Amino acid sequence: MPHDPAFAALRSVLGDRLSLSKPDLEAHGHSESHFPPTPPDAVAYPETTAEVARVVTICAEHGLPVVGWGAGTSLEGHALAVRGGVCVDFSRMAGVLEMRETDMVARVQPGITREALNQELRATGLFFPVDPGANASIGGMAATRASGTTAVRYGTMRDNVLALEVVLADGRIIRTGSAARKSSAGYDLTALFVGSEGTLGLVTELTLKLHGQPEAIGAATCAFDGIEAAVEAVTETIQMGLPMARIEFVDAATVEAVNAYARADFPALPHLMVEFHGSPAGVAEQAERFGEIVSEHGATGFAWADRPEDRTRLWQMRHHAYWAILAARPGTRAIVTDVCVPISALAQAVAETQADIAAAPIPAPILGHVGDGNFHAILLMNPDDPAERAAAQDLSRRMADRALRLGGTVTGEHGIGMGKLGYMTAEHGPGWDVMGAIKQALDPARVMNPGKMVRQD
Amino acid sequence: MPHDPAFAALRSVLGDRLSLSKPDLEAHGHSESHFPPTPPDAVAYPETTAEVARVVTICAEHGLPVVGWGAGTSLEGHALAVRGGVCVDFSRMAGVLEMRETDMVARVQPGITREALNQELRATGLFFPVDPGANASIGGMAATRASGTTAVRYGTMRDNVLALEVVLADGRIIRTGSAARKSSAGYDLTALFVGSEGTLGLVTELTLKLHGQPEAIGAATCAFDGIEAAVEAVTETIQMGLPMARIEFVDAATVEAVNAYARADFPALPHLMVEFHGSPAGVAEQAERFGEIVSEHGATGFAWADRPEDRTRLWQMRHHAYWAILAARPGTRAIVTDVCVPISALAQAVAETQADIAAAPIPAPILGHVGDGNFHAILLMNPDDPAERAAAQDLSRRMADRALRLGGTVTGEHGIGMGKLGYMTAEHGPGWDVMGAIKQALDPARVMNPGKMVRQD
Repeated sequence: MPHDPAFAALRSVLGDRLSLSKPDLEAHGHSESHFPPTPPDAVAYPETTAEVARVVTICAEHGLPVVGWGAGTSLEGHALAVRGGVCVDFSRMAGVLEMRETDMVARVQPGITREALNQELRATGLFFPVDPGANASIGGMAATRASGTTAVRYGTMRDNVLALEVVLADGRIIRTGSAARKSSAGYDLTALFVGSEGTLGLVTELTLKLHGQPEAIGAATCAFDGIEAAVEAVTETIQMGLPMARIEFVDAATVEAVNAYARADFPALPHLMVEFHGSPAGVAEQAERFGEIVSEHGATGFAWADRPEDRTRLWQMRHHAYWAILAARPGTRAIVTDVCVPISALAQAVAETQADIAAAPIPAPILGHVGDGNFHAILLMNPDDPAERAAAQDLSRRMADRALRLGGTVTGEHGIGMGKLGYMTAEHGPGWDVMGAIKQALDPARVMNPGKMVRQD
Repeated sequence: MPHDPAFAALRSVLGDRLSLSKPDLEAHGHSESHFPPTPPDAVAYPETTAEVARVVTICAEHGLPVVGWGAGTSLEGHALAVRGGVCVDFSRMAGVLEMRETDMVARVQPGITREALNQELRATGLFFPVDPGANASIGGMAATRASGTTAVRYGTMRDNVLALEVVLADGRIIRTGSAARKSSAGYDLTALFVGSEGTLGLVTELTLKLHGQPEAIGAATCAFDGIEAAVEAVTETIQMGLPMARIEFVDAATVEAVNAYARADFPALPHLMVEFHGSPAGVAEQAERFGEIVSEHGATGFAWADRPEDRTRLWQMRHHAYWAILAARPGTRAIVTDVCVPISALAQAVAETQADIAAAPIPAPILGHVGDGNFHAILLMNPDDPAERAAAQDLSRRMADRALRLGGTVTGEHGIGMGKLGYMTAEHGPGWDVMGAIKQALDPARVMNPGKMVRQD
């Protein structure tokens, strides 16, 4: 094997926590994305930051790429070892290192999943709000700058990571930020590493901002005749200062898929789902005001719930949506698009996308985080049918081009990975070269997740 | 003059908007800081981004430093031309370029002050919340990652700048971010430039997040026997999820200064001042709950106001504080410290600082943004008295060391500038070298604000 000396050195650090087994390599060669499998040459299971630093140092010495691995839920192939090398699996670095309830801060390892973290937080009265849907690892969520349904109220990973420990490409270990709520002390390295997709270093520890579990939660849902009225209602709600904890949009195609999947009977119309967090009186007042606003915009079927079981019923439309959509066309694979536009352009972006989809040979239900201007079309294609594959790629490309034309971004929360690399020049212009200069400065040998993020040689 | 060829080239771009007049140079040689004056060699008054790019290109060709200038309100000497060169004064680039009310976004030029911006926003129902006290320029606030009294609710400049246009050290113009609310498309260059203090490029345009003007505002003040009880009350309020718009602490020395300055008669005790923004019912509920919490922590003299004139009276203690403190000891100069610690360490940090001050030969009232763990001691020294100067420097150094020991930062909102450069190794360790590598990658010739931020040769 060409990598034998490197593997011997890695084995001296990790023992049998360096795996070369075929099933292990294959399991780390694909994620929840539509890209062809590309297994790494080895999988490392470090247990400490020092071990991660040793692994990176050895890989750098031997010219082996290093790719981080969290929960394998990436939708853009971030963790695929497209140039081979060592996959660093953080499943053995998945603990809560420190819980600081007074500071509303937790120091965690990157492998912990968001559900496991919130389970550990349950008794504290605190929670970590970022919710991308999948039970992703916190390290992976930081790497992709993930967000999800609660970003409209609680922000994205950008807003909820206070500090990091990072192993750099040369094996140095740095700490960025602190448990203080803010700082003006120099370049914001925390923000630089959040969203860097493992291309500048491996995150080995995160200090997260926690939030108080809401005393009361209320949820509501309602239907609209079209997307324009729904977006106008949301815009007005935001401008009124009503603090929505979630505000989600699903189109009629999504509702039909959910009805079939969950034996529900929601009207086949675009819907909004909203959630409020606060005091009982505050939540009730917000729900009432929201009801007034949406009814002025022609909403029908307004239903409100503050008991957990009723909320669950109302939100089943959203929670089941992804699986319901996949089940609507068995045997297909999904390309999940992820554009984000200024709110003023959202209705136009959705309407034009729906017109594209109507003219395409594949179905593509739409759902999204309407308070952020971020929406997804789930492009359901038969991967063995070249025409469907081409149609999906065409829809995806047209959505990305449209998002940029409307002043938005090709990815609101899924990241660049393999899937969006081709849009970096269009989105950033010479700013992409600045990213390349930073990559060159911090990882000149291109050890960290090569083939991603920056211009390729 | 050694710079004649450079000045001739600059004059060909700017005409008489290149100033070499002595009063102009002197006016740009000092700011609201205690550092010795260091006038630039010339002051440029560009009117367009293209002109800024030309100025930077010419300076780079001739090895002349470039230093940005906003409103001159920096407290750490950021804009001082310590190695000479051209001061780029943005007072002629101070407009609102675009107002997007539906998107709750404004695109502005860097020279506009926050008061001028909010004046322009008045009729829209929106406002820009970041309030550092001084009427700083928006560009300067971005450069220092400023915050102030409202950060506990609305965030800092890090949270409220969505996009930038930047002129790089080689004259290239880039755009970072967009008017979309979030993005996962690559390294977060917006966050990198916010807080970079003009050392990586000059910001020529900013897209800002706006917020709805609150329907109702309520304010309250109360006194405590000591800092511990006040901090505990604030911590509990935050954990309860009460959304305070401002929560400020002043110590007894500050209250005494305000009483003397404004002929007021607040009890000479530590005080908290809080403000709530929301619906009338929401604000009333929050005020009531806050009143209950502080009374459980022994607060006295709880006073509540929701009419503007009563709010103004309550807040006079905070608004007058800085000037009242300066007036308390005429003829002195102030060093304004700016540490920020995790909330759990705030009471200890303030108590130890007060003990230091009690043992020092100079007065130093304390006030701060208690919801963020950020506080300032205003060190009042006679600059001509070496003993007082040494005492002030010693207090400042002890505060910074203590903040780091308690897991915080040497600057919560004022920035590094000249004053905190000596703490960068202690705060960031090898992370400071990463900042240096980024500086080297983007400004290898050290054109942009040299002598600041990174390790000096």
